[in-house]
Amino acid sequence: MTPAPAPLPTLAPDTLDRLRRISTPTLTTQLFKLGFRNTFLHGVRPLCPDRRMAGLAATVRFVPAREDRAGYEVLADPQYPQRHAIEHIAPGQVLVMDCRGVASAANAGDILISRLKVRGAAGLVLDGGIRDYVSVQAFGFPVYALGPAATAHVVRHVAVDENVPIGCAEVLVVPGDVMVGDGEGVVCIPRAVADAVAAHGLDQEDLEAFILEKVRKGAPLPGTYPPNEKTLAEYEAWKRQRNS
Amino acid sequence: MTPAPAPLPTLAPDTLDRLRRISTPTLTTQLFKLGFRNTFLHGVRPLCPDRRMAGLAATVRFVPAREDRAGYEVLADPQYPQRHAIEHIAPGQVLVMDCRGVASAANAGDILISRLKVRGAAGLVLDGGIRDYVSVQAFGFPVYALGPAATAHVVRHVAVDENVPIGCAEVLVVPGDVMVGDGEGVVCIPRAVADAVAAHGLDQEDLEAFILEKVRKGAPLPGTYPPNEKTLAEYEAWKRQRNS
Amino acid sequence: MTPAPAPLPTLAPDTLDRLRRISTPTLTTQLFKLGFRNTFLHGVRPLCPDRRMAGLAATVRFVPAREDRAGYEVLADPQYPQRHAIEHIAPGQVLVMDCRGVASAANAGDILISRLKVRGAAGLVLDGGIRDYVSVQAFGFPVYALGPAATAHVVRHVAVDENVPIGCAEVLVVPGDVMVGDGEGVVCIPRAVADAVAAHGLDQEDLEAFILEKVRKGAPLPGTYPPNEKTLAEYEAWKRQRNS
Amino acid sequence: MTPAPAPLPTLAPDTLDRLRRISTPTLTTQLFKLGFRNTFLHGVRPLCPDRRMAGLAATVRFVPAREDRAGYEVLADPQYPQRHAIEHIAPGQVLVMDCRGVASAANAGDILISRLKVRGAAGLVLDGGIRDYVSVQAFGFPVYALGPAATAHVVRHVAVDENVPIGCAEVLVVPGDVMVGDGEGVVCIPRAVADAVAAHGLDQEDLEAFILEKVRKGAPLPGTYPPNEKTLAEYEAWKRQRNS
Amino acid sequence: MTPAPAPLPTLAPDTLDRLRRISTPTLTTQLFKLGFRNTFLHGVRPLCPDRRMAGLAATVRFVPAREDRAGYEVLADPQYPQRHAIEHIAPGQVLVMDCRGVASAANAGDILISRLKVRGAAGLVLDGGIRDYVSVQAFGFPVYALGPAATAHVVRHVAVDENVPIGCAEVLVVPGDVMVGDGEGVVCIPRAVADAVAAHGLDQEDLEAFILEKVRKGAPLPGTYPPNEKTLAEYEAWKRQRNS
Amino acid sequence: MTPAPAPLPTLAPDTLDRLRRISTPTLTTQLFKLGFRNTFLHGVRPLCPDRRMAGLAATVRFVPAREDRAGYEVLADPQYPQRHAIEHIAPGQVLVMDCRGVASAANAGDILISRLKVRGAAGLVLDGGIRDYVSVQAFGFPVYALGPAATAHVVRHVAVDENVPIGCAEVLVVPGDVMVGDGEGVVCIPRAVADAVAAHGLDQEDLEAFILEKVRKGAPLPGTYPPNEKTLAEYEAWKRQRNS
Repeated sequence: MTPAPAPLPTLAPDTLDRLRRISTPTLTTQLFKLGFRNTFLHGVRPLCPDRRMAGLAATVRFVPAREDRAGYEVLADPQYPQRHAIEHIAPGQVLVMDCRGVASAANAGDILISRLKVRGAAGLVLDGGIRDYVSVQAFGFPVYALGPAATAHVVRHVAVDENVPIGCAEVLVVPGDVMVGDGEGVVCIPRAVADAVAAHGLDQEDLEAFILEKVRKGAPLPGTYPPNEKTLAEYEAWKRQRNS
Repeated sequence: MTPAPAPLPTLAPDTLDRLRRISTPTLTTQLFKLGFRNTFLHGVRPLCPDRRMAGLAATVRFVPAREDRAGYEVLADPQYPQRHAIEHIAPGQVLVMDCRGVASAANAGDILISRLKVRGAAGLVLDGGIRDYVSVQAFGFPVYALGPAATAHVVRHVAVDENVPIGCAEVLVVPGDVMVGDGEGVVCIPRAVADAVAAHGLDQEDLEAFILEKVRKGAPLPGTYPPNEKTLAEYEAWKRQRNS
Repeated sequence: MTPAPAPLPTLAPDTLDRLRRISTPTLTTQLFKLGFRNTFLHGVRPLCPDRRMAGLAATVRFVPAREDRAGYEVLADPQYPQRHAIEHIAPGQVLVMDCRGVASAANAGDILISRLKVRGAAGLVLDGGIRDYVSVQAFGFPVYALGPAATAHVVRHVAVDENVPIGCAEVLVVPGDVMVGDGEGVVCIPRAVADAVAAHGLDQEDLEAFILEKVRKGAPLPGTYPPNEKTLAEYEAWKRQRNS
Repeated sequence: MTPAPAPLPTLAPDTLDRLRRISTPTLTTQLFKLGFRNTFLHGVRPLCPDRRMAGLAATVRFVPAREDRAGYEVLADPQYPQRHAIEHIAPGQVLVMDCRGVASAANAGDILISRLKVRGAAGLVLDGGIRDYVSVQAFGFPVYALGPAATAHVVRHVAVDENVPIGCAEVLVVPGDVMVGDGEGVVCIPRAVADAVAAHGLDQEDLEAFILEKVRKGAPLPGTYPPNEKTLAEYEAWKRQRNS
Repeated sequence: MTPAPAPLPTLAPDTLDRLRRISTPTLTTQLFKLGFRNTFLHGVRPLCPDRRMAGLAATVRFVPAREDRAGYEVLADPQYPQRHAIEHIAPGQVLVMDCRGVASAANAGDILISRLKVRGAAGLVLDGGIRDYVSVQAFGFPVYALGPAATAHVVRHVAVDENVPIGCAEVLVVPGDVMVGDGEGVVCIPRAVADAVAAHGLDQEDLEAFILEKVRKGAPLPGTYPPNEKTLAEYEAWKRQRNS
Repeated sequence: MTPAPAPLPTLAPDTLDRLRRISTPTLTTQLFKLGFRNTFLHGVRPLCPDRRMAGLAATVRFVPAREDRAGYEVLADPQYPQRHAIEHIAPGQVLVMDCRGVASAANAGDILISRLKVRGAAGLVLDGGIRDYVSVQAFGFPVYALGPAATAHVVRHVAVDENVPIGCAEVLVVPGDVMVGDGEGVVCIPRAVADAVAAHGLDQEDLEAFILEKVRKGAPLPGTYPPNEKTLAEYEAWKRQRNS
């Protein structure tokens, strides 16, 4: 029921580093230009808005609880997918949990998130609740969730699968996709286009920084945003100057 | 990703026949008495309210669509879980689809439902939409869904798994559970308690028929519903007389 | 906790008869003209759309269930407000239940509704579910609810009060208010204005019937709907002729 | 504020006739193949499921009511957009109203819909409520709405514009677009692609009828649905035979 | 389609200054006393809760996106209503955007908001999302929105109109109405009553400050809040003393 | 209609003190182990996340407003349940208001909350809005609500009862139950089990602190969380050492 994760395709060596420096609005724009319309996990908010996160997705899938399946006793089973996925996370991975959009139950708290941190995970993303919310905010570990919740997940969910494609906040997440987070939230970048997005995204960031500077100095929108030929030429000159 | 279904545990020979004659309110009451609080698939309505359905669950799981994964071309792949599950349904099984509660896309229509019927399936249950709604209503085949929808499922979903535990209308459905439907909707009976529920449910139906008759003739609620010792004794007498 | 209902103020003798013949859109219009903006119970639909209902409200209040309070055993207590209210309904009263807008639990079924019918109640209104939906539709007794549901109310609710002011479908219902239902749904008429609404409503019905006839014959909207002086004069003539 | 409608571009002479014979699932499929993903008005249901509708859109826009703007007196103004649009509808047009998805207020009833019928309109579509629901169902005039409601629209809305682009049930409707309705609901076909959709849609209907027949006779899904070369060849032969 | 804004009626010279000093709860109370029940934009939260905002409304209207209308290319058109409205905002105006309550798309970000600031606008209000949320919070410019979002507005919306009456967060906003914001949110004051509200609102603020002081010192609620004759007399004395 | 509160059963003398030191996730876990699944008030958030609250519940019940019942004038009546309950709160009690989950109206503000504070109340909990939100955050008084709102409660609600069982945020609250709040939110502990929960909860807190320390130092999840025999023995040793 829980197949071993497929070997992950290779990314360019600097892709994750580049993606970590690109904002999620820029990433969704780049993805839209490649034809992807639904990549930002709406409603999933950072516990530490000043952290940036980038890493490959590992996944856990929850289904509705039933009295014969869900209870505290399942948590002692080392194969229970929630616990197993955390215990076996690889350094640099982002754990993504399909919590079915249920904000009123907590799918992780300070102990499990501490284990993820010790294991070297890059972050945790879930469309569910987090307990020990205030303490976890102080961890400085990238966590993205719907909000605080006190009720244990076993009241509403049971974990049944690891490393299968899931929906999280109405976005498809395939194991090995690249999850990037900032103060706005999280975007899921399909693995096959991550290198391309990383390549073009930093450029867009640069161009927008240039445009923002111009607009702050009084430039009108027409011709500036979006930039016309003249503005693009100025930008190229600005870049050359900056880099020289 | 799509493991073969586990061999199903054996049911008593008359369990399905009995369950088909028990109403879903009685079944949820019996399940509540066994400790199960969440077994009725809310919002999933019958296209043919006068049909009864009982059968073992086979499942399909859908996740959110993404432009690199969902499109009409996937439908031609005989391994595509939606098509594969329909093509390999066993006689008497009920196909249950986890459509994530999305009413605005259609996960089946007249052609696929005709194939299920030809294959001898016992019914179709989904927390999604049905196209060709009016024609399907005329099929006399038990279908339970959220309502009519014209948009193809590939706009919103992609099927990724067969015969794994799923959520459907916020209820856990494990392959091999017993799905029973009537004019009210559908209940999912955990496989391990199906025989017990079938044994006690018909009795409850009988008792309630007796009580209804008494109330229609003017019996007051106290002592009648729920029945006290005296009413239960009358019921036993009534049963003996009826069966003699 | 459950005080005896206050003595109901007197209505004009023909008020209920008149109200039963006035459509709910006309009633809400009359109430709007008296300053009441929120009187129609939205989402509460008739099980028998061709029945008309008018009667004085008796009420029951439900709160969220808790394991120490809700269970089948409470139903045997003759003081349990749901059972007590049904058992003590007066002929011509409409029982209104505050089910907190929860469609997924059933707050009445064929047995309880049969008792209401035998007791001479004028109808049942609830912002919750009904079990035995199909059979109840055949009763010819006015029932207005959110839809069918199989799960017993004790899974979600416990009844705590009778004949207190309640909210039902986001509308205030005070014991003794006049509940009127037709194929559209239910309106709650504050007791103090029921006579006035009954007096003016039938006139509006008449006028609208006259306008509809004119529009069907080709009259343009301006001057006809709403009617200007000339149309009102024609209407008065039409009435005189009809009544002569 | 309410500009005169722009002259409508010309459609092929048989486009509306063809579209009226194509089901809305087929139309949304054709539109998806042209790149349009959001064209079916979800939740807007037919009052007469056995009617078909096709016509060019005229539009009315409602905004939230405010006490200084909304009241029964505005209805007497012949320029009030709701009344003006109905009074000036052209034969064959479909009136589409942006009612902001508010199901609890009625934006039309028997009188206004009678006027639309007398004027020769092809239908009425709104993401709001309808009063006099049961009578309107008997009109045999195509009306698509969220459901019955008794409360007058002036309690919740005020009409401010005619024949401007609107959203209806979360779908863009531009005046002059082609609205097509059947028992499933309504699709909005962008004007510029209506001829193309009409041309290809009937073919798809034919092919699906052929496939349905084969599946009913026992054909397996693979190769049949979607059809492979062999099935398409059989279909061509079947068509030639039928047309000869 | 986008008429020039009507000349705005004159306000008393100190009205905006006074309104900027009155809290939104006081303003909604004053408006309620004038008969307006729906003036506070619920769910629209300040990015800078310590800023106050007051200014005349300019508006932009968005409708659902469609693939033939929405894309990045429309943004280069200087007539595109979103860009045109920002580029032509008058000093002291508040730009209000009808984003249809869609929180998951961003209708403005750091560049557009910088342009509004350079142009001297008084603020930005929208029932949609904001990108570059964290940076915009640092601008010290009054922005009120549903929350952060990364997805560009063209994925969900297209702008079609400027300076027409709109709904924003279910409240009517007419161009020229007075928008006032504080840490609670935003209220829309109908233009015709703005002077009256400004005149009475400061008084209510004063009275409530007096009452709060009394209650903190131990005064009981009866007679104090709401104030009876005696408390009002004390208040008048307190005011005279303070102003002497 | 508003019976005097029943005499409250006695709690162990240190129960409230102990409960104030136990986190709400621990409390919901303890309650789940006693069979209570629905005790955490979801969506009700602290205005002061660093405060802890524990006290016995007093309750107020609101129903939908109606023009003949709700208006500012009712507030002057010392018997109006909202005002009466605040004026008669006992020291150490928590006032809990059933605001029907309506976030868009404010059921208390700085003046009423100041009165609660002066009266020695332990806190305020409501599933509604709070006006003067920013000032109230500075009070250092425990308030839990859905968020800020400017609109007065009389626009949406009228208070009708005090000290009756209510629903708040979909959780049953009986007068005399123990309300405990922390940075996560609020849990309602049924009165009869409060002593037991207080007794076991602190132990769980201790054990989890021990486990957290171990996990931070690198302990794997299996055997540690949940703890096996060995870990429990270590914990007992750690406790003995700490307490010696």
